[in-house]
Amino acid sequence: MARLTIRIDFDGNAAFGPGKARLLELIEQTGSLRRAASAMDMSYRRAWLLLREIEALTKTPVVAARTGGKKGGGTALTPTGRVFVDCYRAIEIQAERSVLAQLNRLAGMTKRNPDAPQKRKKVTRNRTPTG
Amino acid sequence: MARLTIRIDFDGNAAFGPGKARLLELIEQTGSLRRAASAMDMSYRRAWLLLREIEALTKTPVVAARTGGKKGGGTALTPTGRVFVDCYRAIEIQAERSVLAQLNRLAGMTKRNPDAPQKRKKVTRNRTPTG
Repeated sequence: MARLTIRIDFDGNAAFGPGKARLLELIEQTGSLRRAASAMDMSYRRAWLLLREIEALTKTPVVAARTGGKKGGGTALTPTGRVFVDCYRAIEIQAERSVLAQLNRLAGMTKRNPDAPQKRKKVTRNRTPTG
Repeated sequence: MARLTIRIDFDGNAAFGPGKARLLELIEQTGSLRRAASAMDMSYRRAWLLLREIEALTKTPVVAARTGGKKGGGTALTPTGRVFVDCYRAIEIQAERSVLAQLNRLAGMTKRNPDAPQKRKKVTRNRTPTG
């Protein structure tokens, strides 16, 4: 079994990959950047910097204060944030589906191959029969 | 413009991505692990360890001594090594092709969006006309 991990590289050395995607999803789930950072075993500062990197990319906020309702007072994704992470996940699924045959071929190559040339064993003359 | 970078994760925490692919291709091109390492600005030891990681994955050698011919005496990829790296490149191309529309959509979101809410400019009364 093999899986794809995908990073998207944009112009200007900016990238979006599994870490940033997970951060946005956890902000949405936990309603807080601090709790998202903690769930990823990451410092608040590191999470905050990742978020700044994402917003430097999107040019518009991906998180906003959530007001009212049961979960009022926390942080939520903006529509841009949600579309961005959803699009990344869709790319992941679609890409993996499209290469499944080749991926299985590679995974198959990592199993011991009975046709592969084995290391030549030392030839021992006058073998004593074993068993 | 956005591009995919793909890492393939196999069972048991082993992975194959752009660095290992490039290393194999450079071994093939330069005929030497040392020259391949140098072309990647990587220590010989680091390149050698990467190669060991690849062979732990493939269970069979991916490089072999090349004998005879114009380029005799160097290092070449084995058929396994060549198939492995070719398959990785094919996956890369196929995956990117399959998600081109979504990739363009994401890339479009990173350009300044005229519909995005802009920061409210300070309203200045009694403007002096400029030009």
